[in-house]
Amino acid sequence: MDALVIHAAGDLRVEDLATPALAADQALVRVRCGGICGSDLHYFQHGGFGTIRLREPMVLGHEVAGVVEAVGAQVTGLAVGQRIAVCPSRPCGACRFCQLGLQNHCLDMRYYGSAMRMPHVQGAFRQQIVIEATQAFALADGIGDAEGAMAEPLAVALHAVNRAGPLLGRSVLVTGCGPIGAMVVIAARRAGATRIVATDVVEQPLRKAARVGADETINVAAQPDALARDALDKGRFDVLFECSGNALALRAAFDVVRPRGIVVQCGLSGGEVTLPLNTVVAKELDLRGTFRFHEEFGVAVRLINQRLVDLKPLVSATLPYRDAARAFALAADRSQAMKVLLDFE
Amino acid sequence: MDALVIHAAGDLRVEDLATPALAADQALVRVRCGGICGSDLHYFQHGGFGTIRLREPMVLGHEVAGVVEAVGAQVTGLAVGQRIAVCPSRPCGACRFCQLGLQNHCLDMRYYGSAMRMPHVQGAFRQQIVIEATQAFALADGIGDAEGAMAEPLAVALHAVNRAGPLLGRSVLVTGCGPIGAMVVIAARRAGATRIVATDVVEQPLRKAARVGADETINVAAQPDALARDALDKGRFDVLFECSGNALALRAAFDVVRPRGIVVQCGLSGGEVTLPLNTVVAKELDLRGTFRFHEEFGVAVRLINQRLVDLKPLVSATLPYRDAARAFALAADRSQAMKVLLDFE
Amino acid sequence: MDALVIHAAGDLRVEDLATPALAADQALVRVRCGGICGSDLHYFQHGGFGTIRLREPMVLGHEVAGVVEAVGAQVTGLAVGQRIAVCPSRPCGACRFCQLGLQNHCLDMRYYGSAMRMPHVQGAFRQQIVIEATQAFALADGIGDAEGAMAEPLAVALHAVNRAGPLLGRSVLVTGCGPIGAMVVIAARRAGATRIVATDVVEQPLRKAARVGADETINVAAQPDALARDALDKGRFDVLFECSGNALALRAAFDVVRPRGIVVQCGLSGGEVTLPLNTVVAKELDLRGTFRFHEEFGVAVRLINQRLVDLKPLVSATLPYRDAARAFALAADRSQAMKVLLDFE
Amino acid sequence: MDALVIHAAGDLRVEDLATPALAADQALVRVRCGGICGSDLHYFQHGGFGTIRLREPMVLGHEVAGVVEAVGAQVTGLAVGQRIAVCPSRPCGACRFCQLGLQNHCLDMRYYGSAMRMPHVQGAFRQQIVIEATQAFALADGIGDAEGAMAEPLAVALHAVNRAGPLLGRSVLVTGCGPIGAMVVIAARRAGATRIVATDVVEQPLRKAARVGADETINVAAQPDALARDALDKGRFDVLFECSGNALALRAAFDVVRPRGIVVQCGLSGGEVTLPLNTVVAKELDLRGTFRFHEEFGVAVRLINQRLVDLKPLVSATLPYRDAARAFALAADRSQAMKVLLDFE
Repeated sequence: MDALVIHAAGDLRVEDLATPALAADQALVRVRCGGICGSDLHYFQHGGFGTIRLREPMVLGHEVAGVVEAVGAQVTGLAVGQRIAVCPSRPCGACRFCQLGLQNHCLDMRYYGSAMRMPHVQGAFRQQIVIEATQAFALADGIGDAEGAMAEPLAVALHAVNRAGPLLGRSVLVTGCGPIGAMVVIAARRAGATRIVATDVVEQPLRKAARVGADETINVAAQPDALARDALDKGRFDVLFECSGNALALRAAFDVVRPRGIVVQCGLSGGEVTLPLNTVVAKELDLRGTFRFHEEFGVAVRLINQRLVDLKPLVSATLPYRDAARAFALAADRSQAMKVLLDFE
Repeated sequence: MDALVIHAAGDLRVEDLATPALAADQALVRVRCGGICGSDLHYFQHGGFGTIRLREPMVLGHEVAGVVEAVGAQVTGLAVGQRIAVCPSRPCGACRFCQLGLQNHCLDMRYYGSAMRMPHVQGAFRQQIVIEATQAFALADGIGDAEGAMAEPLAVALHAVNRAGPLLGRSVLVTGCGPIGAMVVIAARRAGATRIVATDVVEQPLRKAARVGADETINVAAQPDALARDALDKGRFDVLFECSGNALALRAAFDVVRPRGIVVQCGLSGGEVTLPLNTVVAKELDLRGTFRFHEEFGVAVRLINQRLVDLKPLVSATLPYRDAARAFALAADRSQAMKVLLDFE
Repeated sequence: MDALVIHAAGDLRVEDLATPALAADQALVRVRCGGICGSDLHYFQHGGFGTIRLREPMVLGHEVAGVVEAVGAQVTGLAVGQRIAVCPSRPCGACRFCQLGLQNHCLDMRYYGSAMRMPHVQGAFRQQIVIEATQAFALADGIGDAEGAMAEPLAVALHAVNRAGPLLGRSVLVTGCGPIGAMVVIAARRAGATRIVATDVVEQPLRKAARVGADETINVAAQPDALARDALDKGRFDVLFECSGNALALRAAFDVVRPRGIVVQCGLSGGEVTLPLNTVVAKELDLRGTFRFHEEFGVAVRLINQRLVDLKPLVSATLPYRDAARAFALAADRSQAMKVLLDFE
Repeated sequence: MDALVIHAAGDLRVEDLATPALAADQALVRVRCGGICGSDLHYFQHGGFGTIRLREPMVLGHEVAGVVEAVGAQVTGLAVGQRIAVCPSRPCGACRFCQLGLQNHCLDMRYYGSAMRMPHVQGAFRQQIVIEATQAFALADGIGDAEGAMAEPLAVALHAVNRAGPLLGRSVLVTGCGPIGAMVVIAARRAGATRIVATDVVEQPLRKAARVGADETINVAAQPDALARDALDKGRFDVLFECSGNALALRAAFDVVRPRGIVVQCGLSGGEVTLPLNTVVAKELDLRGTFRFHEEFGVAVRLINQRLVDLKPLVSATLPYRDAARAFALAADRSQAMKVLLDFE
């Protein structure tokens, strides 16, 4: 069975792995489609991000869909042949944070394709994977593998939206229209936001954001002052989703978010960020981090299955896994690509 | 100018009123369309509801749309000819509750067509009405008068949904599919609910509920046990919107709402309700009343203008205001009618 | 070892039980003091409450403190000789509600001295008990066994207060001044309530409530109209804790709770309750059940240990466990007793 | 009548002002005591703070208590001779934010002794002042003028605590023990926090913090690693109140606040702050600004009147207003002074 193994920055190899054994409460999944995420790109380009660095070879990938090939003896409710999205998150269930219902902060989390712990948690860019049965979320008839693979980033966006509280009737600014920003646009609309403005410095992602529902898009490189009218009366946006990881975007947005407005920080920046903290104080802004997801994975699959969201416009290309280098290069080119998928068959 | 004046139960007259004078911050509106609400029906059928009784003749109506005919000298941002929905709510702005942002609990509220205070607040089922300019909400091109008139009940439904907190990914039960119940279905879907089950004891409203987005409808008269499967594991619904005003509906629903679930009581019943309070305690249910709306009127108009909701399937008939008796009879017949509108031109 | 075993209403026996075996993660506790709770009384007087009935003999009791006599091989952080309060609640940790952080709604809860499940969960009114080490909460030097035994009802009161949200500066009404009502007075004051009014129909509990911090007490049997002045302007209380289980108390209180006020229902009544649901709707009240506790047990012990609360005034008497019948009779007499404790040594 | 007028940094003069006229809904107050606030100090030392600069002479002061000398014709409920705390905040009541219940963000706020707007709002360090009757909050018998003057900073602290949500049973870190930090210690304890740790780099304020209730105090200049043990398991504090305005304090604290913990930023720093935003993201911290207060002024006076808080230990000295220069110098010396008061009689 083939897998995509990263050894160091720039060193991504197709390697042959043995088909893993199957325990009683597990399922063997034939992976069909996998989405390239920003963190996959960071491992590929830089060997890690922030303080997290590759210390041993690791299979990449955590956004995958496939079909069940076999199930363990104790698995119920999951049939061979079922098409599924695979949840890449396995919290321990027992630690202090799991028992608080904050499983995304599990003290013993295993998350596919992550070098956070040692040994690294191997990822899902492989032709076969053994999962806990609870990681399988059935896809409805007519839902494509690509959509299934995008359940994971949609879950990230849904979690960001949940962090903001209710959005029905709210005015929302999304800074940064990469895949997460674009999915936040989709999720915010699904949650009832009535005004959604999206900004970026590149045209292609702005076009995608408009296509998936942004009421207005602004290229802040070309029109740096376009948001100024929204600074009136201490700011017109109720909620900001900062998805660029760019400190300038965050700073500029502080002026257009209203007092008591909510700022959800989604983007991970390389390091330190300098902020006008006095604005946070004087406007009583509420700056909240958002990190991964938990119950939102199931919600993402339900929204996809019921066609309450449409993620298909975000797919830029699907390439065979053997062309991973080309796929990663395309995924890194924001002028051309939004979400790039790998075909594992 | 003609108006529909209720004198007593069953005594609804078309009467000629003088065109009112216009102050500097007011607008004169030609009313074109008005929706018959449950409270209008109660005045017509019973002369009031609960402890509220007609004590003097009153123009009925609070769900209207029209066109601006004239504006006072100080009015800005509102042009003659503009088509608008009229917000029927005028809180004082100064009392303790207004200053808390709870204007729907204003100690000096004036709400069109309401006998709560004496003298009664005259309503909007008339050919012309003078409003404060702040009560005017512009309708977008292509939005019909009927949709504009339904902004008010939609605002009621939006407020009910806001009372429940975030609905993204939640499982929702709506008991009672009259106009408010049906609009709660629309609002809950707009806010991201992933499972919406609607119940009633009459087929016609259930068909409408299905048409506007309920995933499942149940005639609990025909299938009294159909909800039982949702009582598993202490209940599967996250949120219940009780829109029937029927105590049996509320009691039955307690079994299918999960621990810490939210019950929003929308329906006003005639009087006392007997409840299994022990279930509220043991499941830590959260039973919240909902009453009218405030900022939701503007949100309703935005959702309508942006076509983020579609209320048109709820219109059962539009009749000339001179046929009010027939219109009220139709509105009272749940086997035939959802929302009945009056044409004032 | 002696234990207090209830066989049927009125049939409470001292029986000899074998000292239980000790597993590796458990502790053997010599019970020194136990408080008689309302549910113990219900088993004694009526053989159960609501739909919960005794179906086999059961050791009563769930409010106990004692001293560690032995610890299992894997127990750390708990020494022989340590005086502790024993948490009577053992949620499974794995079910849907435990994983949501709602352990008090565990689908597989074991709670000492409860006939909710079959076989019943045996209680703690016994001279020795084996507990999970996680059920032990160390008492500080100088804290008496009686105070330790009252950590459990204090946890119930703290959970009720937590259900209400922040109380700092709030105006609070407590209806019913039994042990839970009195502890709600203590907890509400500890949480910063600035006005606390307590009502009852018996003088003795009102005197206790005043002693532990109620700003005002009202005997509503003697002064049925004393609360009327608080109905002004739609009601002056921000929060009501209904601790009497008496529907009349709840109904009367609806008039004095302000719009959007919070009503926490603590008392379990015998059965059905008839309520003016229209008031809940028109005032948008928020009626929340409260049931047992989870993390509040640890908070209770910390508050006791740090002397941030003083529960001692609530102790009416401490009797030897062999006088259980007399102790239960006293505990049932609201004119004389608040909290009655049993001495197990 | 004398007043303390600031003309420029270092130029504070005693000047004679005319006794102002009294309107029908106003009261004339003889000021007896005034507290020197950090912002008064900034005007005195630097002529302003951040972007706010003195542009004309301004009477300083906004923390005062006094006695009513005369009331206007329409004033009710306020008698001549009544001792009062004066609320320095006058929101307009009509703007968008006032109507949301967010009066501290009023678009037309008038706040005593503030150069935020032009003309500046003159302050209360004067022998007589005319106020709106609604600004008067009666002091109870036995409550000193000094305590009354401290209602304002206590209101600031209470607002900060309200921004954090419920504190009952929570673990709290307070960084910076100036007057606001010390009052946050008092308010957090009053709201039920069970562990309060206070840090500073100077001994005197730490001693005061311990005296008013901090369970533990740490001089982080002397013991820079003392907090490290609280970084275990992703952090042990539930809530951080950052009252130093020092970016290093905020950064260090991020490590000891638990995932989903709340960080209330109280301190206003001079300008830009560099933060590890990735920690905010990965731990999903919730960083909230806090700015002044609204309803908390009344709560502060009630807490003082009922002796539910004791602010007296925070008074370092009371000097005659003619010795203002000496008083300001003392107030600026953190090694000696916490709250310095001026006597205006």
